Amino acid sequence: MGTVLFPQHVIARKRDGFELGRAEIQAFVTGATDGSWADYQLSALLMAIYLKGMTPGETAILTEAMLHSGTVADLSSIRAPKADKHSTGGVGDKVSLHVAPMVAACGVAVPMISGRGLGHTGGTLDKLESIPGFRVNLSIDDYRRQVGEIGLCLIGQTAELAPADRKLYSLRDVTATVECIPLICASILSKKLASGIDVLVLDVKYGRGAFMKEKARARELAVALTTVAKAMGKPTRAVLTSMDEPLGFSVGNALEVEESIGCLKGSGARDLMEVTFAIGEQMLILPGVAKDRAEARGILERSISSGAALQKFRDMVTAQGGDARVADDPSLLPQATLIMEMPSDRAGFVVDVDALGVALAGLHLGAGRAKAEDPVDHAVGIDRLVKTGEAVRLGEPLCRIHANDERKLEEASRLLGKAIVIGDAKRAPAGLIDEIIG
Amino acid sequence: MGTVLFPQHVIARKRDGFELGRAEIQAFVTGATDGSWADYQLSALLMAIYLKGMTPGETAILTEAMLHSGTVADLSSIRAPKADKHSTGGVGDKVSLHVAPMVAACGVAVPMISGRGLGHTGGTLDKLESIPGFRVNLSIDDYRRQVGEIGLCLIGQTAELAPADRKLYSLRDVTATVECIPLICASILSKKLASGIDVLVLDVKYGRGAFMKEKARARELAVALTTVAKAMGKPTRAVLTSMDEPLGFSVGNALEVEESIGCLKGSGARDLMEVTFAIGEQMLILPGVAKDRAEARGILERSISSGAALQKFRDMVTAQGGDARVADDPSLLPQATLIMEMPSDRAGFVVDVDALGVALAGLHLGAGRAKAEDPVDHAVGIDRLVKTGEAVRLGEPLCRIHANDERKLEEASRLLGKAIVIGDAKRAPAGLIDEIIG
Repeated sequence: MGTVLFPQHVIARKRDGFELGRAEIQAFVTGATDGSWADYQLSALLMAIYLKGMTPGETAILTEAMLHSGTVADLSSIRAPKADKHSTGGVGDKVSLHVAPMVAACGVAVPMISGRGLGHTGGTLDKLESIPGFRVNLSIDDYRRQVGEIGLCLIGQTAELAPADRKLYSLRDVTATVECIPLICASILSKKLASGIDVLVLDVKYGRGAFMKEKARARELAVALTTVAKAMGKPTRAVLTSMDEPLGFSVGNALEVEESIGCLKGSGARDLMEVTFAIGEQMLILPGVAKDRAEARGILERSISSGAALQKFRDMVTAQGGDARVADDPSLLPQATLIMEMPSDRAGFVVDVDALGVALAGLHLGAGRAKAEDPVDHAVGIDRLVKTGEAVRLGEPLCRIHANDERKLEEASRLLGKAIVIGDAKRAPAGLIDEIIG
Repeated sequence: MGTVLFPQHVIARKRDGFELGRAEIQAFVTGATDGSWADYQLSALLMAIYLKGMTPGETAILTEAMLHSGTVADLSSIRAPKADKHSTGGVGDKVSLHVAPMVAACGVAVPMISGRGLGHTGGTLDKLESIPGFRVNLSIDDYRRQVGEIGLCLIGQTAELAPADRKLYSLRDVTATVECIPLICASILSKKLASGIDVLVLDVKYGRGAFMKEKARARELAVALTTVAKAMGKPTRAVLTSMDEPLGFSVGNALEVEESIGCLKGSGARDLMEVTFAIGEQMLILPGVAKDRAEARGILERSISSGAALQKFRDMVTAQGGDARVADDPSLLPQATLIMEMPSDRAGFVVDVDALGVALAGLHLGAGRAKAEDPVDHAVGIDRLVKTGEAVRLGEPLCRIHANDERKLEEASRLLGKAIVIGDAKRAPAGLIDEIIG
């Protein structure tokens, strides 16, 4: 049309419930990227979108505009199919750390752009940085080169990738506009698609320890994500998983790296491996490396038993400047000064382990961040957690607490005492994988 | 409660449709005043309020908090009752200029805080400033002294009065959150009550040339305004008036001052005087100076016939540094360089004068502002406008255009040609006063 789109006119149209056109959405994203919209105008439109919604068509246009607000990594020179995974965040969710090398060992390249932890969920970057020397801030060129050479690279979002998302996310966090499906959708996909992938697998979590508490809302997000990603030409599948109890035996950065290394050696916790295989299978099926889940499962299991996945992990750590000896000697990871076993005050069966309660204990120890600018303590956390269904005797440990401060240890112990519930009757653990969407 | 109210938590509560409590609303207003809320947080809450509304209780709390965000003028030392009026804005609405001295001449003090024009409606301050020397930016002390001495003072909103309103209004204008009844209500009343008045009369306009196009919405605003003002202990009445055609014969700053002076001399246009008396009557009835409309009307008419109202106008102009001789010699007001009569291209009857069309012509000539920082040209505008129902002959003038630029004059002429419609059948002008609320 050639006419200038005033921010207030675009805001008014969404406020009044209209579907925004491509030019209007592009004006918003350009405004967020180059500063031509004021922050207060961006946030007014974010609130109008939160309350009036967006159609799948609008969401796809928004995602595309945010994706192209910066560099889109060009990995077309790499012949292997390229898959990434993304989790909406859970407690003890260290799946990326070991599923990426497993899948890479099976011939599918994994160029992964990850985030940092905020609130009660941990971030892949924080976990990786507990490996001495590991660098997550590579240039796009180094990232492309490493994906080409070893089929695996895990980096953080750079200023070049989806800058509109960085801007909008920072505003959403302080204006109560985070929990909005079209905005979540555009944020996740614009970042992920900027990495240069062919296919994407999403782990959309619901429950006490997840960002989305209700299954129906998580399902809605999963459907939106897969619909929009497909509309943008990227085959995508979402695994809907329950997040009521922590995943695996540990929560904390170095402790989770140690647990992931255990998974690559074949000693992963049942629940953790259930989710790991569900995601890894789709990462092989979508690019056509396996025809079905059974075949994909067999290929992934062999990547572990052959040692190929663990070697891929070592290669990645070395390529990114880290000390790969951690794969064989976990004591090289940061160690806390205080390690305490927490005894059970009664005999019985574990009937509940509240993911949010365990996460709060971890946060209290210093393993996570309350604010984006907070530092994390890589050494602290919880490991050797009991799982629902286990029998425990009086005085037997329910978990180990790793702390660097006596008083934080006491408070974490109190929080864990409330989170882990011992009862009289044995309760079977629930299945985690609810549905595969897309 | 003693706990800090984070902006994002207050925003989230309104976003989710809850009624905000006093502490939450106070946090918002304090945040707007002292900068402890970021602009993007203020605008996110403004949009949530726009879309989720506010109860009368919340609106009253918001108004009170905004009123007390700055100085509230203390006029308690002045013995006369103190009344103010406010119009939601119309085309050719110069009522304040002459109703204030009329009412002041009847023994009711009028301490009036007015605004500048924005968009298609004019502002009382811009009109007053076309009087050579007239100052609208008095200190609160000078304002109080003048109200005490002559019972009349018209000033602009200072930085001390309702600073939260200044901040929020500037944001609303650029974030599409202007047309929201609770926010309009709090904005008007916080400013008006800060002036130290006892009673308030509101002119709530609807129609093509008004801010509110629909009568039902204007009525809703009138009810909200009177309900909230009364809850705050200020007897208030709203006059609901139609604004489809310009009020009176002229649009433009100096031209409207000249027309107002004519009203004070008894030669006011029928429609303009109908609104003037409707408002003036309530300004005498509410403080008990007149017992009913008929008595009030008689008192007001005598203020004109006796010359007392015109003298009060002269006193005010002199007290505020202006040249009071304009009351007797309008040629002392700024004059445009080009004055053109616009002839009718046919004979017939005036069947329509579109207020918005006339306003746009005025805006084009430079009489108003598109943006708050634009200057205005006091001399330009339109006068001697025909009124609906009048017979016109071919070539007879429909109005005069006052311009300082040849091309602007041509464009204004084109716009006026569309705004003024001549037909075959005589149409009676409609009544303007719809209802008195409160």
